[in-house]
Amino acid sequence: MTKSKLAWVLTNHPSGIPSEDDWRMEEQPLPELADGEVLARAVYLSVDPYMRGRISAKANYAAGVGIGDVMHGGGVGEILGSRHRDWNPGDHFETMGFGWQDHAVLAGDSLTLVDGSKAPLHAYLSYLGMPGRTAWLALDDIGKVQPGESVVISAASGAVGQVAGQIVKAEGGRAVAIASSDEKLKWCRELGYDASVNYTTASDLGRALSEACPDGVDVFFDNTAGPIHDAVMKRLNVGARIIICGTISLASKFDEPDMGERFLRQILVARATMSGFLNFDHVARFGEADAALIELEQKGKLKFKTDMEEGLATMPSAFISLLTGTNFGKKVVRVGPDNLA
Amino acid sequence: MTKSKLAWVLTNHPSGIPSEDDWRMEEQPLPELADGEVLARAVYLSVDPYMRGRISAKANYAAGVGIGDVMHGGGVGEILGSRHRDWNPGDHFETMGFGWQDHAVLAGDSLTLVDGSKAPLHAYLSYLGMPGRTAWLALDDIGKVQPGESVVISAASGAVGQVAGQIVKAEGGRAVAIASSDEKLKWCRELGYDASVNYTTASDLGRALSEACPDGVDVFFDNTAGPIHDAVMKRLNVGARIIICGTISLASKFDEPDMGERFLRQILVARATMSGFLNFDHVARFGEADAALIELEQKGKLKFKTDMEEGLATMPSAFISLLTGTNFGKKVVRVGPDNLA
Repeated sequence: MTKSKLAWVLTNHPSGIPSEDDWRMEEQPLPELADGEVLARAVYLSVDPYMRGRISAKANYAAGVGIGDVMHGGGVGEILGSRHRDWNPGDHFETMGFGWQDHAVLAGDSLTLVDGSKAPLHAYLSYLGMPGRTAWLALDDIGKVQPGESVVISAASGAVGQVAGQIVKAEGGRAVAIASSDEKLKWCRELGYDASVNYTTASDLGRALSEACPDGVDVFFDNTAGPIHDAVMKRLNVGARIIICGTISLASKFDEPDMGERFLRQILVARATMSGFLNFDHVARFGEADAALIELEQKGKLKFKTDMEEGLATMPSAFISLLTGTNFGKKVVRVGPDNLA
Repeated sequence: MTKSKLAWVLTNHPSGIPSEDDWRMEEQPLPELADGEVLARAVYLSVDPYMRGRISAKANYAAGVGIGDVMHGGGVGEILGSRHRDWNPGDHFETMGFGWQDHAVLAGDSLTLVDGSKAPLHAYLSYLGMPGRTAWLALDDIGKVQPGESVVISAASGAVGQVAGQIVKAEGGRAVAIASSDEKLKWCRELGYDASVNYTTASDLGRALSEACPDGVDVFFDNTAGPIHDAVMKRLNVGARIIICGTISLASKFDEPDMGERFLRQILVARATMSGFLNFDHVARFGEADAALIELEQKGKLKFKTDMEEGLATMPSAFISLLTGTNFGKKVVRVGPDNLA
């Protein structure tokens, strides 16, 4: 039986974009299994924007990672040993609590069985997992898209954005993609997005957005904050809904106040509603979201691009690429072989 | 029959706080009554923050006042002559569309009968009228106050704030007043507010607010925007609701971008919801609001302070005092005698 693991521990709470030496890889002993626990190996580890909040020195919506602690993160793994009646060696599972490590001892009750014959294992970290659920639940709970409405989605080729655009299309809405490269936007068009704006090359982001949304913006699925947020907020229709799902453009000044133009008059004039969304408030509806996503996929209406790195060693650089926007698609690191039956 | 009227017409679209010469009083002929119309005299004219938006050169939620047009505003009046079957001379009514003038020819269908024997006539411009309805409907639609929750109300001694605080108390909430003078806050305490913050004298507004809200803020009824908004947004509890009802602190830079700290991370972390509220979206529920307000008043739970000026000539100065916060209570101008039967 495996006696030790390799793990990335936090060495520093960065103040802006992290650097690779904010983590250190170390070998750690694996404890003996207690009743109810399993030993597992990582197959795929997820890399997600929310992790920036976890390494902030400032309080956030979830407890942060302490110096010397294993970095937080979700993953898909395979059971190697089990003292839990539901889990057997060879089973595959998904958990938000794997950590950046190659092996882990985990509470069996905290794991969700996944089926590698129905979808690639890493899909349970993306379009059939947390990002997919986030897109579906946020649109259902806050967006409430009506047929014909214009829905602007920032970070449109990201893990949440790809799924959100396709849900909007399935609901009869008009999906408008904002992303950082023509390559990403070409992919968004393949997913069905009706219009697109490259915010890095647009000479006038506001005008580009007006052209992409000639009838204004009914729903804004905001994954970025920053200048994209500003441009969209000036184009709200009466009754607009704004989903605050992520703020990745603030990663470089995460613990500083975000200064800029404020939009209280726009919110008042449009009688708009802006709501923060975190998927873990909606655990009771995960099953509903999963069923809807699987149905979309089975109808051929859910394409997805994954940006895969190889090896546990790449975790910090993979995460930094996400924060700087050089990823293309959902960032996942393959740590070991699938070993599907 | 009266052949002419005195009216305040707009001479300029001001860029910040208006000055008195942004209006000019002029004598205008009164047209003959057409079928369905009435001739009325003003008894009380209302002075409200929303009027700032109407004199902006920029588009707002309602069409603005053009140069040379009679200034928009609501009032309570008395019918002098009628070609409408429901209205007779001596009847009193309320309308959002009287204008800043001593007489008006109005469509009879646009008027609401008021009863001067049940409440002072000017109450239909305040706690039994638009501001009262706004307080009740915004709290019902967005605030959804639960017993024990802390509700912060800015411009707490204003027309909307006075009513809002008393509704919160009636619903079992904890009402926290923010206003600009100890005299105003003393009145808020008499209305039942549990705690109060003087934002002009607090050496540290944030700390004063933390002391007034030791368990954080569940609902924020924002009538001001500006620095008060900033201090409250840093103290949101999970699931907080923010009502954007007014932005009077922005009156001095109405058409400029409002620059400052933005709170998207706070909205995300608190999963807060911020919604703009305009009472005219809720006309279908005015009867419900009115009934609730009258019930509160009859139980002795609705006290109210009116800041009364005398004479049509005072309209511009009364309005400017509202924008600069030197009013105390709901600003109303008495234009003529009540003439109650």
